[in-house]
Amino acid sequence: MSKNYFEDSVKLHLEKKGKLGIVSKVKVEDKDDLATVYSPGVAQPCIEISKNIELAKTMTIKSNTVAIVSDGSAVLGLGNIGAEASIPVMEGKAILFKEFADIDAFPICLKTQDKDELIFIIKNIAPVFGGINLEDIAAPKCFEIEEKLQEIGIPVFHDDQHGTAIVLLAAMINACKITGKNMADLKVVINGSGAAGVAIMKLLKCIDFDKNYCTSVAEILMCDTRGIISKTRTDLNESKRELLKHSNFSNLQGTLKDAIKNADVFIGVSSGNLLTSEDIKTMNKDAFVFAMANPIPEIMPEEAYKGGAAIVGTGRSDFANQVNNVLAFPGIFKGALDAKATRITPRMKLAAALALAETIENPTKDNILPNPFDKNIVKLVSKAVSDAWKLENF
Amino acid sequence: MSKNYFEDSVKLHLEKKGKLGIVSKVKVEDKDDLATVYSPGVAQPCIEISKNIELAKTMTIKSNTVAIVSDGSAVLGLGNIGAEASIPVMEGKAILFKEFADIDAFPICLKTQDKDELIFIIKNIAPVFGGINLEDIAAPKCFEIEEKLQEIGIPVFHDDQHGTAIVLLAAMINACKITGKNMADLKVVINGSGAAGVAIMKLLKCIDFDKNYCTSVAEILMCDTRGIISKTRTDLNESKRELLKHSNFSNLQGTLKDAIKNADVFIGVSSGNLLTSEDIKTMNKDAFVFAMANPIPEIMPEEAYKGGAAIVGTGRSDFANQVNNVLAFPGIFKGALDAKATRITPRMKLAAALALAETIENPTKDNILPNPFDKNIVKLVSKAVSDAWKLENF
Repeated sequence: MSKNYFEDSVKLHLEKKGKLGIVSKVKVEDKDDLATVYSPGVAQPCIEISKNIELAKTMTIKSNTVAIVSDGSAVLGLGNIGAEASIPVMEGKAILFKEFADIDAFPICLKTQDKDELIFIIKNIAPVFGGINLEDIAAPKCFEIEEKLQEIGIPVFHDDQHGTAIVLLAAMINACKITGKNMADLKVVINGSGAAGVAIMKLLKCIDFDKNYCTSVAEILMCDTRGIISKTRTDLNESKRELLKHSNFSNLQGTLKDAIKNADVFIGVSSGNLLTSEDIKTMNKDAFVFAMANPIPEIMPEEAYKGGAAIVGTGRSDFANQVNNVLAFPGIFKGALDAKATRITPRMKLAAALALAETIENPTKDNILPNPFDKNIVKLVSKAVSDAWKLENF
Repeated sequence: MSKNYFEDSVKLHLEKKGKLGIVSKVKVEDKDDLATVYSPGVAQPCIEISKNIELAKTMTIKSNTVAIVSDGSAVLGLGNIGAEASIPVMEGKAILFKEFADIDAFPICLKTQDKDELIFIIKNIAPVFGGINLEDIAAPKCFEIEEKLQEIGIPVFHDDQHGTAIVLLAAMINACKITGKNMADLKVVINGSGAAGVAIMKLLKCIDFDKNYCTSVAEILMCDTRGIISKTRTDLNESKRELLKHSNFSNLQGTLKDAIKNADVFIGVSSGNLLTSEDIKTMNKDAFVFAMANPIPEIMPEEAYKGGAAIVGTGRSDFANQVNNVLAFPGIFKGALDAKATRITPRMKLAAALALAETIENPTKDNILPNPFDKNIVKLVSKAVSDAWKLENF
């Protein structure tokens, strides 16, 4: 009998009244303790930091604390449910930070959903944090918010974009190893041009440095609910027109089903039940199908295999090859904090994907990504990310 | 040999790299746990809260989490040292919340020091918090910030103002018991018209309800560095002119030394070494002297007693009768959170002071306030505060 996660989760939340707690790392048992931890002794660390602001990174919680910031505008598959209703997700995310990377993360759920106000507020709350994890903020505003925050001196990372992209790239690297395909030859279709879809496209285009088995893919087509994004279409907003700089150079037009003909890779970050095994049959031999819509994938794994797919991944934990962000963000933030990086660069993202792929020594069809509970993952990913930063900033 | 709290504190901060940690109150050991704590199960609590936003107070960390918000503009006695340098103090304060009231508190140190921007940001970060403790924000902007935030639906409390005022009032109640003086007859001089001074004045003027031994004092004179604040003075800013609504009705003019002649109570929230035993001799018989400047009081206890004072309190832990905010704010926030109060009213502040005074069964000259480490204090204060809210909002 399968557990009812939804009921259990409500019970848990009512019982615990919140899933996070704050603890003191120092004891306060008498007046001497108080005088060291707090006034008057605490004045001295304050004075030191006021003379050199960088010391906040070594003398305060800034050393290991990440803000999980959301405006509740695109929470899970629930849409725009607002700040208060997003809190349980942000608390859950904080628990993942703690359990997987021993990072202290705290939910910041913001009332406003205005792009410029969000940017303003995040800049101003930054002093106490070592990093900002943007979470469940709707596209397209999430792109500009992240971009405008790149210069605030601590890493700002929108996990819905890059977390997914990094894990997906790791999966593709191992899928190539299994099938003998070459990353540089792949024709890729991405269905969904939201936060994750765009980040995947960008990462697949910027992987042409560092290691020779890892280069930009041959071709990318982006699709939205109206089909292939092409310069012929007149219904595209600014951010979708931007995608044409990196995709669909031969200006193909048509539906998703037209797009995947002769493609090597289908990447779905869209909605359930869009494809059949007949559609997969029109793809190139040994196709990769990453059907990541939750809870219903764009095509069920069984159907995809029936259509001839060589490798199938989903977003679900009850199928093999779950593309799960938790494989990436804990190690990425840990690596960035360890290196005192001021941002997370494309090279760091690529390093994370490569390290993640390499955690599987002998990838097989049903084992292209590791188990999130494997304690080695964070170690290896964070080391790779930290090294990548140092390489760029020695 | 006395400990060097300053050196010890720097060592502690370098070693611990921050004094706070975040913990998960639930275990995450396998995929089932993940699915309950996080996706997909967490969607259900989110849906419930989106239908009724008040449920955030019972299903999330909002139930027991307070933001400690500062812009670093008036930190301890260090002045305007900025957001980053204020972090060690805010972390220390969070530890006090935890140790004394089992409240989870998190430091929010804001980069901007603009009044309207601070108000805007605090309003927008409120969703995840059950209360806001304003800390070390300079006067006079702290008054308007607190006032403008009273309608955001959760308690907002500037501890530097009201924490001090509440503990001081408790001390005065017990001083009256010892000396047989009557609160209603007291002539009070408050030296210092910053955050604490103004709050003390307000609380001493609004204590005329509830219990008959606790009524407004007879007279208050406020002083600043230029002497008695009177309507004759031409150098007063808006917020100081405002004080004349509640003080100096007979328009006395002169210095601090003129002010304390024939006064019953001296309350110093100013700076060290302002008075001598000769000055205390000019006060009424059995005067109360609360010389709370730190680390050097306005007058040392020994000097004050030499001048004939009956009761002397300071801000220091190495003398008797320490007026210490930690006696008030943990119980006040706990009471407010327990009652799901949406603000902290004057009646709740008064209830806190009365409860605090009553924790001492038989007050004596050297024992007008309890030891902060007495576990009963928070219980009694929080119960009184919670009951006061319920009485006003039944």
